[in-house]
Amino acid sequence: MKDHIKITYGQKSLEALSQKITTKKYSSVFVLVDTHTEQYCLERFFENCPLEIDGVLTMNAGEENKNLSTCEYLWNELSDQGADRNSSLINLGGGVVTDLGGFVACTFKRGIDFYNIPTTLLSMVDASVGGKTGIDLGALKNQIGIIREPQEVVIETGWLQTLPEDELRSGFAEMLKHGLIANPNYWKTLQSLTSLSSSSLEPFIKTSIDEKTKVVLEDPYEKGLRKILNFGHTLGHAIESYYLTHKDKSRLLHGEAIAIGMVMEAYLATHCSGLDAAEADEIKKTFAAFYPQIDITFEDQNEILKLLRHDKKNKAGRINFVLLKAIGSPDIDVEVPHEFFAKAFEFYQSKTN
Amino acid sequence: MKDHIKITYGQKSLEALSQKITTKKYSSVFVLVDTHTEQYCLERFFENCPLEIDGVLTMNAGEENKNLSTCEYLWNELSDQGADRNSSLINLGGGVVTDLGGFVACTFKRGIDFYNIPTTLLSMVDASVGGKTGIDLGALKNQIGIIREPQEVVIETGWLQTLPEDELRSGFAEMLKHGLIANPNYWKTLQSLTSLSSSSLEPFIKTSIDEKTKVVLEDPYEKGLRKILNFGHTLGHAIESYYLTHKDKSRLLHGEAIAIGMVMEAYLATHCSGLDAAEADEIKKTFAAFYPQIDITFEDQNEILKLLRHDKKNKAGRINFVLLKAIGSPDIDVEVPHEFFAKAFEFYQSKTN
Repeated sequence: MKDHIKITYGQKSLEALSQKITTKKYSSVFVLVDTHTEQYCLERFFENCPLEIDGVLTMNAGEENKNLSTCEYLWNELSDQGADRNSSLINLGGGVVTDLGGFVACTFKRGIDFYNIPTTLLSMVDASVGGKTGIDLGALKNQIGIIREPQEVVIETGWLQTLPEDELRSGFAEMLKHGLIANPNYWKTLQSLTSLSSSSLEPFIKTSIDEKTKVVLEDPYEKGLRKILNFGHTLGHAIESYYLTHKDKSRLLHGEAIAIGMVMEAYLATHCSGLDAAEADEIKKTFAAFYPQIDITFEDQNEILKLLRHDKKNKAGRINFVLLKAIGSPDIDVEVPHEFFAKAFEFYQSKTN
Repeated sequence: MKDHIKITYGQKSLEALSQKITTKKYSSVFVLVDTHTEQYCLERFFENCPLEIDGVLTMNAGEENKNLSTCEYLWNELSDQGADRNSSLINLGGGVVTDLGGFVACTFKRGIDFYNIPTTLLSMVDASVGGKTGIDLGALKNQIGIIREPQEVVIETGWLQTLPEDELRSGFAEMLKHGLIANPNYWKTLQSLTSLSSSSLEPFIKTSIDEKTKVVLEDPYEKGLRKILNFGHTLGHAIESYYLTHKDKSRLLHGEAIAIGMVMEAYLATHCSGLDAAEADEIKKTFAAFYPQIDITFEDQNEILKLLRHDKKNKAGRINFVLLKAIGSPDIDVEVPHEFFAKAFEFYQSKTN
């Protein structure tokens, strides 16, 4: 990979980060937070990462702010606060902050150094490696961005204490995905968890990051293998976008949406990539144990399928999926006939036996 | 350099480009033009580059449109017209089109292939190599962007026939700069030209591109040597920004602005980097022979100096210049005491002996 991947773990790594950044003699150092991490994480950041900071930039929390106007605001803030080519940016927050902050840093004055400190389970196990920076364009997720690794990612699980349960659930979906696409034993282990808490999940974070890192190192620009990480995401992104843009709908976090996507795509796999029906049922049952069922109306379905056509992973109008041949064995670029979509929604909505 | 630099020359290279692009089997191919190149170049492009095109995207011409809202429009157009990760973009136009189109391509779905066909002298000799893509942020030039080379750049001088004289003058300034910073003989040769026309300038385009390529290959990310290309640009950019944002001022093209910048910085060099006063006079006289004198008021000066503080090449509030020690011998990171700025304006405005 052109870019390096550097991940450090543990509370001491925050202190080490502050030393490293001091050694680099940046002309100025800025911290990006959102309104959540400003409230819940910033004080702890300063306690554990004793660094001289030239400015704290705050963006509004939430996926709906992962857009161009937030970038414009931050680029202007950096300019106004005197950031130059030798400045650096520390992104302290969940995936929205690290994705958007990474993009802002990569493009400000044609690129300044940036560091990510993910504070949610999802951003630790998913956004932390792979260098995918980016923002949404209208309802289209991550439509604009570039691929570049941060200088360093610090994984410190102390942040998880402040997270509500739905945030843990959201990250857990990506961990289950790592099992489903690459490691059946890991899937079995996670399946057997009886509750989701920061202490029950902490021991598995490194395994998930390692699984993802293996894939990303082999195919950084997603020409082939890396596509397996999109399992559940083709339908999941469309579902996420739909719930994001319909304010009368209940809030659906990224992982919650791709959990639905994985269940539906498990159904598609029984028709299009040879997944055993028993394994599809096992997948459905596992997700049902951890995730509340969402009621998706016929009208919702139609809107979701419209969004599906715009997914950036689709080539020239065909809708390609990453599907499972078996648990642990993914297949990429599987074309799915449109007639199966409605049945996939039915499968998700059907009662779990 | 991480990215390759691939430049082809001549009318046949347009045909070769169409073959190359066909071979690549992109899912779709788009052409970006501005309202000028749509009118003057598009037909000739289709005649010489017989390619199946999926869509022509048009942006408004002019530096004032090299901004985020144009990018947003183009990203949405690409989405709406079904562009995907395997699409590609051909930028047909001057530096604004290739800079902005490059940025749009590099960031659309985290990067699609792009090809540049510069149609102005300036974009041939300057924007064609070095991979600097980008847009302006308010009055701040090229504040946002990334460095990535296009797949290929086609230099074909047939386009120059349609250019007005001020556009030739604008490109010529960068050619003179290449002489001043790297090749005294080339400077002498250009100095001796008696008129600026596409036929008088054509023979020198490749020399200029070669001079720039040498520099860029040695230091693609502008850590040191590449900074010499900014000669004339520190003041020049501020002057350009000022005239761009003041609609009651006469139009000043990029090269016309940096021509003024080079004259003023020649003066600064006599105080700060040991340039012989006779060489500074020679520089002033040469530019005076090719460029109309601009009247810069005291109020203009103040506004220009304000903009100077925001130049992205300035580290932490200090204003660093690339100055000449002698013609052909540049010096980078020269700090200039503020007291010399007013005198540099005076030097530019003074009568040429």
